[in-house]
Amino acid sequence: MAERIEYFYWPGIQGRGEFVRLGLEDAGADFVDVVRSRKRGLDEMILIAAGEAEGALPFAPPFVRVGGVVVSQTANVLQFLGPGLGLAPRAMPLRAELNQIQLTLCDFVDEIHDTHHPIAGGLYYDDQKGPAKRRSRDFVAERMPKYLTWLEHVLQRNRSSGGKWLVGRDCSYADLSLFQIVAGLRYAFPHAMAEVEADLPLVVAVHDRVRERPRIAAYLRSKRRIPFNEMGVFRHYPELDAKARRRRRV
Amino acid sequence: MAERIEYFYWPGIQGRGEFVRLGLEDAGADFVDVVRSRKRGLDEMILIAAGEAEGALPFAPPFVRVGGVVVSQTANVLQFLGPGLGLAPRAMPLRAELNQIQLTLCDFVDEIHDTHHPIAGGLYYDDQKGPAKRRSRDFVAERMPKYLTWLEHVLQRNRSSGGKWLVGRDCSYADLSLFQIVAGLRYAFPHAMAEVEADLPLVVAVHDRVRERPRIAAYLRSKRRIPFNEMGVFRHYPELDAKARRRRRV
Repeated sequence: MAERIEYFYWPGIQGRGEFVRLGLEDAGADFVDVVRSRKRGLDEMILIAAGEAEGALPFAPPFVRVGGVVVSQTANVLQFLGPGLGLAPRAMPLRAELNQIQLTLCDFVDEIHDTHHPIAGGLYYDDQKGPAKRRSRDFVAERMPKYLTWLEHVLQRNRSSGGKWLVGRDCSYADLSLFQIVAGLRYAFPHAMAEVEADLPLVVAVHDRVRERPRIAAYLRSKRRIPFNEMGVFRHYPELDAKARRRRRV
Repeated sequence: MAERIEYFYWPGIQGRGEFVRLGLEDAGADFVDVVRSRKRGLDEMILIAAGEAEGALPFAPPFVRVGGVVVSQTANVLQFLGPGLGLAPRAMPLRAELNQIQLTLCDFVDEIHDTHHPIAGGLYYDDQKGPAKRRSRDFVAERMPKYLTWLEHVLQRNRSSGGKWLVGRDCSYADLSLFQIVAGLRYAFPHAMAEVEADLPLVVAVHDRVRERPRIAAYLRSKRRIPFNEMGVFRHYPELDAKARRRRRV
C-alpha cells in the first residue's frame, strides 16, 4: 500500500470510524485524518458524500480514499485495507470468516446505537427516552449476552485449533473491533458488563491483549483518541444501564 | 463452482435469506435448500448454528456451505458466491463498490425490520405497536426516501459512465437485492411507496428489468418463492404505512 490513505470521519466522536482508525493506528499506517487535520477537511468530506467528487458514492462516513478509489461502509473499508495493514489472514475461507465476524460486530454496534435511539437517529435522546429504556432492558438481558457469548464461542473454537485470536493465528481487525466494543460497553453499561464479564474470559483476554499492543497503547494515550462521549455510539446514560437479568451458571 | 451449494435459511419466510436465494435462482446454480427439501434439514441448520459442526460459527441464518466451508452474513455470502454466479464485476475497485452498496442495502433492510420491531426482535409486534408507529413515521418521511434517493444517485452516476445497473456494465447481486427491497416496500408500505416512486425512475427501471429476467420471472411464479407475509422482514401493517411527508419538487 504505497499510496497514502485519506481517512474521512466526523470530528468529535469515535463512532463507527473508530473501527477503521484502530486498524490504521495498529499498523502504523501512513494516513491522514482529513477532517481533523486539514483546514477545509470537513468540506472535503461533505463534498464526497454529496456526490461532488469522483469515485463510488458513500452512503455515510466513515470512508477512505486511496489512489482515487473511495471505499465506504466500515466492514468494507476494513476488508479493503486489512491485507495491506497486516490485519487479515491470507487463506480465502479465513477471510470469509473474518468478514462474517466483522459484519456481526457491525450489527452489534447498530443494536448498541439503537439502545439510545430506538425511534429515529434524527431525534434527540430525550424525545425517545421511554422506548430507549425498554429497548435497553432487552438489550442488556438478551442481545448483549447473546453477541458476547457468541464471540466467546468463536474464540473457544479457534483456541481448540491453536489460535488465541478470533480468526487464524494472528490478530486481525476483528480483534481490534472486539476491543473497541468491550471498551465501549464498559463505558455505556458498566453495571451490566460487570455482571457478564466473568463468563467471558477469552473475550476479556483479547480486549486486554489489544489494549497492550504498543501502537494501540500509544494511540489510546494520545490526543488522537477522542474520549467516549454522549454524541457517539457508546453513550453512558445511567438510566439505560439496567442490571442484566441474573444468570446462574449451571 | 463445481461443488454443490447448500443453502440454509428458515422455512416460511423470505427474510434475509431471499437476497442470497435470488442470486442462486438468477444464476441457475446447483444448490439445495436444505431446510425445505431434506427431512431433517431444520435440525441440520440448527446444529451448525449451535456450533455442533465443523467450520465457521454463524451468528444467524442465512448461511451456505460449500465444500465444507460455512459462510454467513448476507452480504458476505453474496460476496463469496457472487463471482462464481456471474453476479459480480471483475475489477477490485468495482467489487469494493458493489460490497459497499450491498452493505448499505443490508442496513436499509435492518431499518425496515425495525419499523415493526423497534424495541426487541424477541417481543411480539403488538407489544411494541406504539413505538413502531413512531419509528415508521420517521422511516417513511426520512429514512426510506434517503436510502432510495441514494440508490437513484448511484444509478445516475453509473449511467453517466454507460451502465444501466448499480455497478459496472452488468447486473450484479446488488441489483437483485434492489428488486427485492422495492417489491418488499411496495408490499409493506404501498401508500408511502406510491408517493416516492415518481422521483425514482432508475430505481424502478432496475426493479422491472430484474423481475423480467427469465430465471427470476420463472422463480417468482414458482412455489419456491414464498409470498410476503407478516413473519418476515417486510410486513404490511396498514397502521404503519403513514403517508410520506409530501415533498414538492423544486
